[in-house]
Amino acid sequence: MNRMQIAGQLLPTMVLILDLCGTFAFALSGAMAGVRRRLDLFGVLALSFAASSFGGIGRDVLIGAVPPAALTDWRYLGVSLAAGVIAFFWSSRIEQGRTPVRLLDAIGLSLFAVAGTEKALAYGLRPEMAALLGMLTGIGGGVARDVLLAEIPAVLRSELYAVAALAGAAIVVGGSVLHLPVLVGSMTGGLVCFSLRMMAIRRGWRLPVAPDSDQGAKP
Amino acid sequence: MNRMQIAGQLLPTMVLILDLCGTFAFALSGAMAGVRRRLDLFGVLALSFAASSFGGIGRDVLIGAVPPAALTDWRYLGVSLAAGVIAFFWSSRIEQGRTPVRLLDAIGLSLFAVAGTEKALAYGLRPEMAALLGMLTGIGGGVARDVLLAEIPAVLRSELYAVAALAGAAIVVGGSVLHLPVLVGSMTGGLVCFSLRMMAIRRGWRLPVAPDSDQGAKP
Amino acid sequence: MNRMQIAGQLLPTMVLILDLCGTFAFALSGAMAGVRRRLDLFGVLALSFAASSFGGIGRDVLIGAVPPAALTDWRYLGVSLAAGVIAFFWSSRIEQGRTPVRLLDAIGLSLFAVAGTEKALAYGLRPEMAALLGMLTGIGGGVARDVLLAEIPAVLRSELYAVAALAGAAIVVGGSVLHLPVLVGSMTGGLVCFSLRMMAIRRGWRLPVAPDSDQGAKP
Repeated sequence: MNRMQIAGQLLPTMVLILDLCGTFAFALSGAMAGVRRRLDLFGVLALSFAASSFGGIGRDVLIGAVPPAALTDWRYLGVSLAAGVIAFFWSSRIEQGRTPVRLLDAIGLSLFAVAGTEKALAYGLRPEMAALLGMLTGIGGGVARDVLLAEIPAVLRSELYAVAALAGAAIVVGGSVLHLPVLVGSMTGGLVCFSLRMMAIRRGWRLPVAPDSDQGAKP
Repeated sequence: MNRMQIAGQLLPTMVLILDLCGTFAFALSGAMAGVRRRLDLFGVLALSFAASSFGGIGRDVLIGAVPPAALTDWRYLGVSLAAGVIAFFWSSRIEQGRTPVRLLDAIGLSLFAVAGTEKALAYGLRPEMAALLGMLTGIGGGVARDVLLAEIPAVLRSELYAVAALAGAAIVVGGSVLHLPVLVGSMTGGLVCFSLRMMAIRRGWRLPVAPDSDQGAKP
Repeated sequence: MNRMQIAGQLLPTMVLILDLCGTFAFALSGAMAGVRRRLDLFGVLALSFAASSFGGIGRDVLIGAVPPAALTDWRYLGVSLAAGVIAFFWSSRIEQGRTPVRLLDAIGLSLFAVAGTEKALAYGLRPEMAALLGMLTGIGGGVARDVLLAEIPAVLRSELYAVAALAGAAIVVGGSVLHLPVLVGSMTGGLVCFSLRMMAIRRGWRLPVAPDSDQGAKP
């Protein structure tokens, strides 16, 4: 069995595992946002599912992979609900650890950006669009979570977030263009995304806002 | 003509009729939310259409039934717009009846949960996912209505709502798994959903919120 | 080469050009909304892309044209990002011109309503539904922009907006039904939409709101 065949067998399994880990991490962070807003059990579970699966569902709808994996494979739903129930009952314990929601969120972001890019490449999208879809997979769940809570999505003005996802996705795409082994590209991309995001939180790295056009005239 | 064939002919007709009745009920409730927020005529009609059709459109996009029924069959649009115009001109009269919006909403919820589940089953989704999609069909329009009004969707924290839809959908799925006649499963599922929802409103049945993690420390 | 063949060659090119011009106009108006809300550079670019492309992406998902043109053709993304960067750095200059955002928005609306209707017709939708989809293409980006900013979409209560798009789309559909040359229908439709929208802004034309049901009783 040559390298190509191994990669061909590894790819689907790896995409699945990455997807499920990312699902758990995002579901936990979505559920905790719901707990903080005093939603009921259904609301918390719905936010778990939205935060964990709407990025991937969006990606699958856009590339024509319907019904989306999150709706045909019960494992995504199961992992989401499990994370939601855990957050519902033990949110205070999860909250106590230092910045645990952000840590989980960074893990989910990295895993989804990588898995989303791999899947978009597997569906034949052009490299730059696969990277864009990978980023969208990573940030989509969080956007859905914030829209459902009637808030401006944090990703539009937080510390480096989408940019970290995009960097990770770009590395995956680069690895694919250079025909590197899938695992190398994926792991490097995921690590870069995760490190960039954690550094951004710790050091407060932010993108600039537009130069002020009116010297503070607007209140 | 045996029972199977009758069911085969009845199913599409029944799904259509259920869909149209649900469309009218949800459109009315969506339009009245728009009237209350002082939207203009277009805004009211847009909310009619969103509340009545986005659940079904979402379902159809997710199962790959595009263009969605709501966009190929003018009857959905016609029923939505008719309900919107009625609500626009006679909202005060509709409002006067006791909790009429909630009653209509419960009817729409039941009809959509059942019709959505039937359609998902007809497209070959697994039973548990068909139930989930039925629930999504039922609550999707209301979520779209609330998101468009920049509010947290009521379904995330109201009295039993999605749970009622899920119960109805589960009964439809159960009937299908047990090979009961389609009408039996559908009508039982719809009645259970409707009764559960109306009881929940009357008696204030709610799902729990998460145990308070900080004894009211957060304001 | 007969008229039919010329139209057959012109149509795709014309749809592309209209789409790209509309993309630029909407991206600029989306980006400026982001600048005004003090989003960071990514937020501004994301709003550019959302405002410029979500109408077309929604249309493409609904008619089954996936992956959507906005994700397979880098020119849409490039034009969006260029408009976003321009708005980011020169927003004050763009703002200084008299009602420039609204002018751009009206141009984008007209171009998208026409292009969206043409594409829906090309995908075989029925005339009235093609007009509806053309209108949705025109207003979809603005709705996405406002939802992401957690605001009620302006289109639901502004001066004639969706109605202008619908009028333009209806003319395109009418031209197609009457077998007029594509350019005639498209240009007439676009001009009618643009004129109607600009007149509506200048003269404050609005659709009515519902007759007050309670003589101001509700605060």
